[in-house]
Amino acid sequence: MNKIAILGSTGSIGTQTLDVVASDPGRYEIVGLAAGGNTELLIEQAKRFRPAQVCLATKEAAEQVRPFVPPGTRVLYGEEGLVEIAGGSGADMVVTGIVGSRGLNATLAAIDAGAAIALANKETLVTAGHLVMERAAAKGVPILPVDSEHSAIFQCLNGEDRASVQRIVLTASGGAFRDKRREELADVTVEQALSHPNWSMGAKITIDSATMANKGLEVIEAHWLFGLPYERIDVLIHPESIVHSFVEFVDNSIVAQLGMPDMRVPIQYALTYPERRRTPAARLDLAKAGSLHFREMDFDRYPCLRMAYESGRTGGTAPTVFNAANEVAVARFLRGEIPFLSIERIVEAVLERHTAVANPGLGEIAEADEWARKAAEAAKG
Amino acid sequence: MNKIAILGSTGSIGTQTLDVVASDPGRYEIVGLAAGGNTELLIEQAKRFRPAQVCLATKEAAEQVRPFVPPGTRVLYGEEGLVEIAGGSGADMVVTGIVGSRGLNATLAAIDAGAAIALANKETLVTAGHLVMERAAAKGVPILPVDSEHSAIFQCLNGEDRASVQRIVLTASGGAFRDKRREELADVTVEQALSHPNWSMGAKITIDSATMANKGLEVIEAHWLFGLPYERIDVLIHPESIVHSFVEFVDNSIVAQLGMPDMRVPIQYALTYPERRRTPAARLDLAKAGSLHFREMDFDRYPCLRMAYESGRTGGTAPTVFNAANEVAVARFLRGEIPFLSIERIVEAVLERHTAVANPGLGEIAEADEWARKAAEAAKG
Repeated sequence: MNKIAILGSTGSIGTQTLDVVASDPGRYEIVGLAAGGNTELLIEQAKRFRPAQVCLATKEAAEQVRPFVPPGTRVLYGEEGLVEIAGGSGADMVVTGIVGSRGLNATLAAIDAGAAIALANKETLVTAGHLVMERAAAKGVPILPVDSEHSAIFQCLNGEDRASVQRIVLTASGGAFRDKRREELADVTVEQALSHPNWSMGAKITIDSATMANKGLEVIEAHWLFGLPYERIDVLIHPESIVHSFVEFVDNSIVAQLGMPDMRVPIQYALTYPERRRTPAARLDLAKAGSLHFREMDFDRYPCLRMAYESGRTGGTAPTVFNAANEVAVARFLRGEIPFLSIERIVEAVLERHTAVANPGLGEIAEADEWARKAAEAAKG
Repeated sequence: MNKIAILGSTGSIGTQTLDVVASDPGRYEIVGLAAGGNTELLIEQAKRFRPAQVCLATKEAAEQVRPFVPPGTRVLYGEEGLVEIAGGSGADMVVTGIVGSRGLNATLAAIDAGAAIALANKETLVTAGHLVMERAAAKGVPILPVDSEHSAIFQCLNGEDRASVQRIVLTASGGAFRDKRREELADVTVEQALSHPNWSMGAKITIDSATMANKGLEVIEAHWLFGLPYERIDVLIHPESIVHSFVEFVDNSIVAQLGMPDMRVPIQYALTYPERRRTPAARLDLAKAGSLHFREMDFDRYPCLRMAYESGRTGGTAPTVFNAANEVAVARFLRGEIPFLSIERIVEAVLERHTAVANPGLGEIAEADEWARKAAEAAKG
């Protein structure tokens, strides 16, 4: 049995991971579940999957949960609890499904404990890719991508010599506003921004799809995961989200991974790799799909993507600042404080004021992160 | 240096193989070239690539060539010469680019000599797949596909466990008449049938694309190459010929191989496998392609494909008879003796009269082949 711990068990990745686990009885044992504040769902999950440990964001939430979990279940909380679930639950694999930069310490704890990482927290690599990949390599711990794009690339690289990769291409649906001109974006509402055409995901990542900041984070993540320079990572608009990404080799042969937009396939692939097993996901019928479309990425239309590439190329603390400023700006948009186009304006303003520190340690990363958050909170919307 | 012999060096596959060889100086040594009757081109090739042996179809053609090849070049002819080039030229790899069932004995000779086979002669597996695959396995000789569809499947299977294949799907452009209704096919000319929309190929295979007999032969070939039952081999119409074929795995993940329609990529892949090297082929720009289309195969529209599946399922000598009857019917159409739709009528009539022999030896295959050819020549057009 594979012992699995899930960080972010009540979120989109977490619940779909538990779907995969439930669809293959006897294969997995859930040893730890960490959630934020959704106590009701965590209690339900704890009753069903009976992990030895659960964790919530705050002490208050932990106290709410304690009376309702199965007897013997340890109830932890806070950053310390999260690190304990990641590194102290005896998991063979830790699924990092937390959104934002909170996942970093827990991921490092899991690596130190020798657990494989099913990585859905892209900010981990964005902010500290140099540290995480180095530590994983030193520990011999595999970092398995869960994002559909990175899973696609990972699958296309199966059995291939990495030296024969010419470039990788991440596909992008274009997000909720792909059919709107730039001028039409000034007045879009939170509700409109949250209706993604293809994927059902969390709120933050759905907004990031509309601004293409999400694709930018994925580009930086791909840089670290696959060890490729930015000039060999491209982005292409593909509205149907059926071709999940592809690899172009030096012989101009392209290998692509396709499927219905269903996160359970890449999640399961990370859990079972290198094996493939049946999934609850639907089969793709290409004749029914009829046609697939592709068009060039427009960096003027999506300045957040341009800034992500720029931050990635600058390196050091720049991607941390890009990510933190974006996280805060999105939160402000979701709270109704600022209009949609202010997200990119805030990110740009904060990046402009930052001088990147090269090869930063965890302390410098945390410092840059905190600085960028404050700057983004204070920035005029 | 890889020692290469090419059977069918003046044909479409042969000339493109020599293109690949010429594009990578110092990697290959051409040890043998076999052609049919194109003496002029063979002389040119012999001068340029300096093989130790060349072969022509007839003694007459060989005598024509002899005075013009470099000194010391052996000039062979006929079936015996072909077998000598395949098995006696010291090649590490034999590219079987001959069209039709003539390639069989030479392929077996190459296998017996321990040469890897770059297989472009699909009739070899269609007529004698059980014998060829068994002998190749016994000799530990790899059979590497050159057809773009099979190369695509082969590439998609890289690093994958074959047991996790749910099905493979061969794409079909639909051929020269894909936009014509069945009623419109009665009066089509040879010239119309020879204008394939995407690929530049030989005459016989181009007609086979229009009738879908080619896809049928590919289905039978795939059955032997990948060891899959017919119910796990599907065909899908894809007019652009950009997705060259794909594999669907048990987790409903699809891996596809894409590229510009250029045979030099799959040819080179067979020559360099598992390595990938730069090719003279153009890069695929998906944004420029814009859209890719897919539609269900219509077995009523393409009875030759239906008959190929039926022959494959029947097994034994049935695919040999399908192939031989088709070869003769196509030749008769190309000679202007019969209308286009008579190709399928002749194949159907010949198949109806045949009682398949199970697990046939070479003699029984040759007998069925000869019988089918006579029957197809005699059949009313």
